[in-house]
Amino acid sequence: MIEKSRRVENTQESYIRNILKAISQPGMLSLAGGLPDASRFPFELLANASQNLVNNPGIYQYGPTEGLPALREWILAKQPQGDLDVLLTTGSQQALDLLARAYLNPQDKVLVEAPSYLGALQIFDLAEVETVAVLSENDGPNIADLERQLKAHKVKLFYAVPDFQNPSCRTWSAIKRQQVAELLAQYDVAFVEDAPYRELRFEGQTLPTVSSFMQQLQADSFFLGSFSKIATPSMRVGYVSARAELLKPIAKVKQASDLHSALPMQQMLLDVVSHPDFDDHLQALTKHYQSRRDALVAAVNAHLSEFVDFEVPEGGMFLWLELKRHNARDIAAKALVENVAVVPGTEFWPSTREADYQAIRLNFTALDAEQLDVAVARLAKVMAAN
Amino acid sequence: MIEKSRRVENTQESYIRNILKAISQPGMLSLAGGLPDASRFPFELLANASQNLVNNPGIYQYGPTEGLPALREWILAKQPQGDLDVLLTTGSQQALDLLARAYLNPQDKVLVEAPSYLGALQIFDLAEVETVAVLSENDGPNIADLERQLKAHKVKLFYAVPDFQNPSCRTWSAIKRQQVAELLAQYDVAFVEDAPYRELRFEGQTLPTVSSFMQQLQADSFFLGSFSKIATPSMRVGYVSARAELLKPIAKVKQASDLHSALPMQQMLLDVVSHPDFDDHLQALTKHYQSRRDALVAAVNAHLSEFVDFEVPEGGMFLWLELKRHNARDIAAKALVENVAVVPGTEFWPSTREADYQAIRLNFTALDAEQLDVAVARLAKVMAAN
Repeated sequence: MIEKSRRVENTQESYIRNILKAISQPGMLSLAGGLPDASRFPFELLANASQNLVNNPGIYQYGPTEGLPALREWILAKQPQGDLDVLLTTGSQQALDLLARAYLNPQDKVLVEAPSYLGALQIFDLAEVETVAVLSENDGPNIADLERQLKAHKVKLFYAVPDFQNPSCRTWSAIKRQQVAELLAQYDVAFVEDAPYRELRFEGQTLPTVSSFMQQLQADSFFLGSFSKIATPSMRVGYVSARAELLKPIAKVKQASDLHSALPMQQMLLDVVSHPDFDDHLQALTKHYQSRRDALVAAVNAHLSEFVDFEVPEGGMFLWLELKRHNARDIAAKALVENVAVVPGTEFWPSTREADYQAIRLNFTALDAEQLDVAVARLAKVMAAN
Repeated sequence: MIEKSRRVENTQESYIRNILKAISQPGMLSLAGGLPDASRFPFELLANASQNLVNNPGIYQYGPTEGLPALREWILAKQPQGDLDVLLTTGSQQALDLLARAYLNPQDKVLVEAPSYLGALQIFDLAEVETVAVLSENDGPNIADLERQLKAHKVKLFYAVPDFQNPSCRTWSAIKRQQVAELLAQYDVAFVEDAPYRELRFEGQTLPTVSSFMQQLQADSFFLGSFSKIATPSMRVGYVSARAELLKPIAKVKQASDLHSALPMQQMLLDVVSHPDFDDHLQALTKHYQSRRDALVAAVNAHLSEFVDFEVPEGGMFLWLELKRHNARDIAAKALVENVAVVPGTEFWPSTREADYQAIRLNFTALDAEQLDVAVARLAKVMAAN
């Protein structure tokens, strides 16, 4: 049989994919995924958008690699002014993959946070690059550690999720955003800002993007945007915005790898997000997720306070529980037996670095308040017995 | 500025992309593209399909990497029986890209036809593999040359378009399909069968796929399918089918690179192709393209017979004109000045091989009979003057 490539051999498996069978057992309560609440998709706006397709026969022909011009313009109008352009992708996941293929050679070094988004680590595995990890704190990367890593390694880019990170749900402070940008500019390292959760803010103030600081410093940055968490994920519309010149190699890879992403999806997404009712939808959605976050926080305080430490995030989709005395993989495996699924924090550490502490990630968007309480009570039972 | 990757530096540009500006000049008649006739998309079926989305709220959540189960089953039901599975992709272009990333390491050797589909050559450039070319004849690869190449090179897979190839519009004979399969099985080389034009047959008999011979021989093969030419291209629904085991590494790359392709597009496509009226659409479409082929053949016979040799294809989207005394690049450049665009055959030769002869590719699906005649008359004027 034809032999697999090295890159696919060396790519980390998805934990959730591997426990999918267990998760779909009847009675299972899963805090392990990162699914939005499917009952809260903007169905009226979607129905309106799908019906509009009938009046738009031109949308069915091959289109430009960069995507639907009207949606690109809509996105650009929302961005800070500057010499920016936008390329639409099959979800922001593809934007990162194309970026990695356009800019990284095997053995290049990429800086990531520890912990980091698993999907990004898989992309860097596929790109056969070496990841260098910087320790992440509640308000962003440890700046001393960041400078140490930049001095020690010839790093080509820094990938991070500064708003409500997956898995830690941490958000970088304004001052750390500026400090990181200044350091990266000084060391001539590009920044890749992945922002799928940025609009899922329940309270507190929206902070400037790290990319906006990078632009002020005339340093290279890429902003990855997603509509999966605020509209619907299965249309797979995401984007990368950056200086036009920086997008050219990405467009070349996109053109060769799939020509362009689905245009009717881009048109429907534009109809949804530009509709006057979309803001109301977004406000209702964040309120809904806020109440689920509150329910999960209450459940953790009620059942788990002796076992875990955590911060309450101002948005996003996850709680990140640091375990006082348990081993994360062990607890996750035993929890499955008790019909509750969580992801051990070790899954989110880049392979080049040992996890500094034990943690588990809990999602709060997919289950309702009652289910969240039952799930956490089951988890407490497992922790108490171990 | 951040440096581009080697792979993107080394990837051939698309000729059509490079002349896009010239092509969009007023008065230009383009025989250069490969666009289906947008006036013949199945609009009624598409309208029905987009309206059906309203009744299918479940289609908007994240879905399986392999794609919509119902469409996968529909595709499988049309395939020869056997232990096959299907993975849906963003057009069949992505299927080839994922396959290359799942199976090829840099410096691996891949066998291709000369000439070959440019989009495939770009994917192999991105994969940083070496292409080995086998000479193509009117009824398929030259078998002696194929065996010579297989003996001389440790080739990992053979990529080809056996039905109405782009650019040559040639179709392999049944006997060559079997001979190629036997040779590949003997040398333990996998076959990748790209078949976007297979259903665009105007006359003559549909031949068994090369993959079906490979399966009989229990040899590795991948079949790439597309709906772009028979339904609509911008929904970007394609697929790869192969033994389930062979699809696993491809699914792993897909999961990491974009999670999955757009589900509402897969559902709409299923509604379109499984509708009782789809066969009528396909029959009308092939009749329509047949009449355009006939118009182009008549125009070439009327204006160009002293300059070119060609075969009349039984389907597909192109005529492939071998030039008796002209240089293809020279003619293509001069034709642009006379407001007619064609692609020089040299664009379709892998970079590792010199073109054996001069040729140009003419598309007949995008222009009507009158435009085709005017375009060819302009081309004749250019050839007569050079």
